[in-house]
Amino acid sequence: MPIQGPKGTRDFYPEDMAFQQFMFDSWHKSCRLYGFEQYEGPMFEHLDLYTQKSGDEIEKQLYSFEDKGGRTIALRPELTPTLARMAAAKGTNLKRPVRWYSICRLFRYERMQKGRLREFIQLNMDILGIEDVSADAELIAAAVDMMRAFGFDDTDFKARVSSRTMLEELFLLCGVERDQLKPLYALLDKKGKMSGDDFSRELEGIVNKEDIRGKINDMFNCGCIDDIERFAGTLGSSPPQIASLDQLKKLFALIDSYGLSDYLVFDIGIVRGLAYYTGIVFELFDVRGNLRAIAGGGRYDNLVGLYGGPPTPAAGFAAGDVVLGELLKSKSLAPPPPPRSDVFLISIDSGASAAIINTAQQLRAAGISCEFSLKDNQNVGKQLKSADSARSRCALFIGGDEAKNGQFRLKNLITGKEELINISEIDRVLRGMF
Amino acid sequence: MPIQGPKGTRDFYPEDMAFQQFMFDSWHKSCRLYGFEQYEGPMFEHLDLYTQKSGDEIEKQLYSFEDKGGRTIALRPELTPTLARMAAAKGTNLKRPVRWYSICRLFRYERMQKGRLREFIQLNMDILGIEDVSADAELIAAAVDMMRAFGFDDTDFKARVSSRTMLEELFLLCGVERDQLKPLYALLDKKGKMSGDDFSRELEGIVNKEDIRGKINDMFNCGCIDDIERFAGTLGSSPPQIASLDQLKKLFALIDSYGLSDYLVFDIGIVRGLAYYTGIVFELFDVRGNLRAIAGGGRYDNLVGLYGGPPTPAAGFAAGDVVLGELLKSKSLAPPPPPRSDVFLISIDSGASAAIINTAQQLRAAGISCEFSLKDNQNVGKQLKSADSARSRCALFIGGDEAKNGQFRLKNLITGKEELINISEIDRVLRGMF
Repeated sequence: MPIQGPKGTRDFYPEDMAFQQFMFDSWHKSCRLYGFEQYEGPMFEHLDLYTQKSGDEIEKQLYSFEDKGGRTIALRPELTPTLARMAAAKGTNLKRPVRWYSICRLFRYERMQKGRLREFIQLNMDILGIEDVSADAELIAAAVDMMRAFGFDDTDFKARVSSRTMLEELFLLCGVERDQLKPLYALLDKKGKMSGDDFSRELEGIVNKEDIRGKINDMFNCGCIDDIERFAGTLGSSPPQIASLDQLKKLFALIDSYGLSDYLVFDIGIVRGLAYYTGIVFELFDVRGNLRAIAGGGRYDNLVGLYGGPPTPAAGFAAGDVVLGELLKSKSLAPPPPPRSDVFLISIDSGASAAIINTAQQLRAAGISCEFSLKDNQNVGKQLKSADSARSRCALFIGGDEAKNGQFRLKNLITGKEELINISEIDRVLRGMF
Repeated sequence: MPIQGPKGTRDFYPEDMAFQQFMFDSWHKSCRLYGFEQYEGPMFEHLDLYTQKSGDEIEKQLYSFEDKGGRTIALRPELTPTLARMAAAKGTNLKRPVRWYSICRLFRYERMQKGRLREFIQLNMDILGIEDVSADAELIAAAVDMMRAFGFDDTDFKARVSSRTMLEELFLLCGVERDQLKPLYALLDKKGKMSGDDFSRELEGIVNKEDIRGKINDMFNCGCIDDIERFAGTLGSSPPQIASLDQLKKLFALIDSYGLSDYLVFDIGIVRGLAYYTGIVFELFDVRGNLRAIAGGGRYDNLVGLYGGPPTPAAGFAAGDVVLGELLKSKSLAPPPPPRSDVFLISIDSGASAAIINTAQQLRAAGISCEFSLKDNQNVGKQLKSADSARSRCALFIGGDEAKNGQFRLKNLITGKEELINISEIDRVLRGMF
């Protein structure tokens, strides 16, 4: 009975890895187009790094353990704390703005359910050092363009945006107490997944004054920024004194300059569970299917300071590989696995003979990927079968009568076309093919 | 006081990551030239996977822990067990030969000393399904060519090779008992690091017959394959009945066909500590400096079977990022970090205005990486300073009198050269530059 891999993890056989690599290559390219630099951190951190940011509760969702030196360690569940720690460590020596990205493995100890994994991969993009909403706009544009680069358009996904600052300002204008804010964010975060009755009941549990609950319900019914403006007017603020609303308006104007208005939707229900967001929050979600989140992020101006660094405005987002992978597969947007080699050398006379190895080395030195059968005296049919398994683009037949005439026969394994090539010209001919 | 990362781990800031990425890109390229496909596995496995292969002792060197479901988990200290598990799981459905590579993070809980890290990265290349020494030759050639691709030659490194089967055959011919083999391998493995006296003392502890110790000492003084052949003759075997010697001879002949004879050295002292090697073993080592191991590997024909898979001949090697990184730096073989962006857009009139964003999107859509200042109303001098920090290749000045004439000024930030470009032609001109 073969040993199995741990629950919630994946084995990436070459065909799976080719698919992952296709995603990663596109991510790298998108990030570079936007002028982002890659960074990485350790696969685990001191547990404190996560509890300081998210509270002790977070430990339940982590792989945490004591190492042999008695330190409490956790496999990283997200990369932002590592980023903020690294930025804090450099202090004022870090040249701003920082435009960093990473393609990173992450770990969460979650109850197993469909589509949830305990080990997964994320693209992270962050800008540090910019207070202005221009950074939020650049990140939303980068996230949208990352998806467009795969071939998705606004019939596939949208970016839903809101503002944590605006939510706070509006809640306070409604008459909510400060200590009610956190439970209200949590309730709003799960509003989409609950019935109207359940929502009302939970809201009653947080806010006992009926008139305030009425205002909150009106607020939650705002479907666009104009609605928010009108709603704020009903609260007696005219023109409404909501600074964060101007920010949101500027964000929409900027995204219009990026030519991406069709992707941006205001949605007051976007909260992004984590407590540390401090401004604009956003989420890319799948329009079809189950409206799953493809990416999410926002502004977190306090985190670098929390870790002992200088005050540092910051914003970023993360996109996971699992939902994106499913979307790519459902729309057949990923190419088939590439050939394992360009050329499979086939021996007519004998096995891995000197002539085969010489030719292989000559081609490899010329930048042409090639392989050959490592079994002695395999017949040509079996060698061709191996070339097929390797998805090689062509077969080069070494030896036989052709070799005596200074030529090798080349067979294109995709078209089936054959031709004779002078041995002295094989580098040139093959290089021209790929 | 900023929080620090865990001991023995590294933070890869963009300049460090650019260096890592240079190594990884070269590794990917070398592997593809040899027709290897990439695979990956989970970052942790059930502890059993490692103790079944290496014994319970191995746990001391691992990050192991109980997860919340009561399973004993270990961060992977090497990738070969994962590879063998994956091969075993596919059973006879796996098309052979397998030619797989991986660039993987690994973890060892080691006492901290110079050059030792608890988290590091390895290139792994493995061939499964080939019994013949042709697979060992292909792997040694791939390892040597991986190093040559960086610009190292035979004055920098050599491949030392031996055979575990041959060691066993010779030890038995010397009159050693089977149960003395393991301690003898362990002793031979550390011979290079101990004094002659210490070695003699330890050898006496294992083998009590003086004549056998004499033969072992003669055996250890063999400096080449001819010496081995002569030595075997003195044991009464003439012609020597050592099958593994023919294998080694074939290996040297094959490496000669690869044109890599100058790199290959026979060294009876190469054992490769791990108990599971079953044939040829080899090591790439730094000729200068401290003769450090750059890569190491060998044949392990029993591992896939041990994990419940079908009998599967197998061979592979691993190369770490730490020693290689130091060698690259000492020989200045790595390029400087690449530009963060090709073009930095500089606003003459105002901040991240619509014109800047429009131009950025136009260039990015044309595959040109670009960025701009995200701060409103920054003066041109400060924007140029940002372009400098970003190591951008050129600055494109948007706005001003030139724009009124339908032109933008382009400054090459490497040569300092400036030119005027018609706005309608910027995609074409810039694409031609990069």
